This record gives sequence, structure tokens and C-alpha cells, in this order.
Amino acid sequence: MSSWATCPATWSLVDVARLPRGRSAMQEEINRVIVDRALAGKRVVRFKGGDNFVFGRGYEEIIACREAGVPVTVIPGLTSPVSVPGIAGIPVTHRGVTHEFTVVSGHLPPGHPEALVNYDALAKMQGTVVVMMGVENAPHIAAALVAGGRPASTPVAVVCDGTMPTQRTVLATLATLADRLVEESVKPPAIIVIGDVVAVAHPDAFPG
Amino acid sequence: MSSWATCPATWSLVDVARLPRGRSAMQEEINRVIVDRALAGKRVVRFKGGDNFVFGRGYEEIIACREAGVPVTVIPGLTSPVSVPGIAGIPVTHRGVTHEFTVVSGHLPPGHPEALVNYDALAKMQGTVVVMMGVENAPHIAAALVAGGRPASTPVAVVCDGTMPTQRTVLATLATLADRLVEESVKPPAIIVIGDVVAVAHPDAFPG
Repeated sequence: MSSWATCPATWSLVDVARLPRGRSAMQEEINRVIVDRALAGKRVVRFKGGDNFVFGRGYEEIIACREAGVPVTVIPGLTSPVSVPGIAGIPVTHRGVTHEFTVVSGHLPPGHPEALVNYDALAKMQGTVVVMMGVENAPHIAAALVAGGRPASTPVAVVCDGTMPTQRTVLATLATLADRLVEESVKPPAIIVIGDVVAVAHPDAFPG
Repeated sequence: MSSWATCPATWSLVDVARLPRGRSAMQEEINRVIVDRALAGKRVVRFKGGDNFVFGRGYEEIIACREAGVPVTVIPGLTSPVSVPGIAGIPVTHRGVTHEFTVVSGHLPPGHPEALVNYDALAKMQGTVVVMMGVENAPHIAAALVAGGRPASTPVAVVCDGTMPTQRTVLATLATLADRLVEESVKPPAIIVIGDVVAVAHPDAFPG
């Protein structure tokens, strides 16, 4: 927002992070602000942190616009489950190691009635798993992956505070992840990378 | 490269797409150019299209640098399996629809001896599947997903020539994908999105 001062006086700024509503009503309120101003003939530029389409609720705003007949152009941003590991020196894919990666929202534990992730099937896949919003449920997720067949020795990297001055990477295995999170006092936000790509990035920590 | 003319004369440009080698030796040659110049005391900026860590061989260059003692800073770019569907109006996740997405390289057909993707397990997951480099093998991949348990009616969107003036989206289901690719003369490059998020984006094409 530091460049705001240089914008024409005919532009107006709405800080939707400060809308006077409870957290649950916030998204609807944001949708309303966007649609109302567009229907009033304004061009609306919606700045949004992170990747709007990766657990970012971005499409809810697009649907609100669609239903109101407001055309939308998407300018994509960086996808943190790929870019944050990349900045931390961990590739989500590597030739000969994996032909796939899965990005999972860890906000619900395995077995939760509203959970949409089949952890048993995910365990039977061989590729990289990237867990977002999963610090709290990480012990349950690791246990579910091991129960489903992933080796307990599978390498894990927890990238904390990605891109921030406090960024750090905590290494573990599926077997040790729960203890390591406690030992290292890991707090959100963190992105958890599970799979042999972690050993590619940290061969000394995971020899052989 | 249009801004190259404005760079200082002490900078030099190496177009690695034109290195005089066969395709298979190319990556090693690129690694060599990067390492040799860095060891000669130059700062090397490696421009690379796409997401280097999503089937992009970017980490091979980092390993080459690591082995030579050359430090590397990663500046991440856009992740096409997320950003291209986004530009085409399709979110890879949507609240209440999926808590996960899987990005797969489709360059090998299911069952190929070198394939690392467990399509049976992938079929048993419920979330979005994004297939890259998969136009040729798409019929086999769709069949494998249906054989593993995904409904044949699962919506599919093929985003062709993403971000190019010729960009277009071909809609199908897992059942009709093979025929639709022929009918619409789909050629690479294309990104194939499989899952209910396609119906969220195209409710008229996938009613109910």
C-alpha cells in the first residue's frame, strides 16, 4: 500500500481486512463490497494475499460477481505450497523421485466428519504431500499416513514463517514429526512437506 | 529479453535454449554453464520459464551448484497447474468441494514400468486432479481413474494454450474425455483439470 499515495485522487481504497463484521460474515461482506462498487460503474481491483484458488476462497468472490453479471479477470499470484518450499530449498517434484504432488488442507484432522481427504488413499500414493494449515493436526496426519502404508522413515520438512525474516526449516520423519513440532515449538504459519524430495534437498540429514 | 539493451555492458547473456547439444545432454550443459560462470566469480541469473520445481528440473541445477559450492537464491514463479486453470476461471480448490488437489505429470501412461503414480490410489481420493503434459495419455489416465472408482461423470476441463491468444477450454467428463480430445483436435500444451471444481466453474455445463 506504500504506493497508494501516488494513485489518482479518483481512486478509492477499501481495506476489507477492517470491515466491521465478525469473521464468519467477512467473506460475504467482501463479496458485497466488490459487487456493489462494480455495479456502480467502478473498476474494482481486489488485492488478495496468497493464492486465491488454493484454500483462499477466491472463487467465492468470482461466483458473487458472476451471479451479479460482473465480469472478472484473474491475475494469478504465487502458490505458497510450491513457492515456499522452493524458497526454503525444497522442490515439490524431482526427476526420478516423484511424478506427482498433493496439496492438502490440514485444518481438519483425519476422520473428522467434515473432512474431505481420504488419507488412506493418500498414503498409498508415492509422491510428495504438502500440508497447509496443518500444524495442529500434523501428528494425526502423520499417523494416518503411516497407518495407510507410508514408511515411518519418510522425510518431512516443516517450513515455518515462509519468506519472513524468521523463516526456518524443521526436519523430521513421519515417525518423529509430532515430537519435533513440540521440541522446536513450531507455531503456525508453517507448510509441511512430506516425501523423498525432502531427502533430495537435505541429503546429509537423510543419508541413503 | 527486450530490456536486455538497457543492461550494463559488463553483463553477458547466454541463451541456453541454443546450446549446441542434443536434447538429452542439454540439462547437464546448462548446469555446467551456470556452475562454470559462478566459479569464475560471476553472478549468474538463471531465467527459466514456468515453475522450476514442478516437473521443471530446476532442482538439478541447484544440486549442481550445491556440489560445486555455489550458493543459490530461489525467486519463485507462477505455478501453471494452479495459475492457468485460475486464468481460465477454474479454481483448483473450493470451499466445501475439496480439501486437496493433486498435480500429476501425465508424460507416462498408467502402468508404464517407469511410472511413479499410483492411479488406483489417486482414483480413491476425492479431490481435484490436475494433469500436466498429459494430452497424449489422457484417455488412459481417464480410464484408470474410472477403473479405480472415480465416477465416469466426473467433470473435466482441458485448458489449451493457457495464457496465449489461442487459449480455449474444452469441457468433458472422464467418460467422454478421449472422444472430446479428438473432436476438438486438442494438441499440447494443455492442462487437464479433473473434479467437481470444474462444475463449480461451469454450472451450466454440469447441472446438478
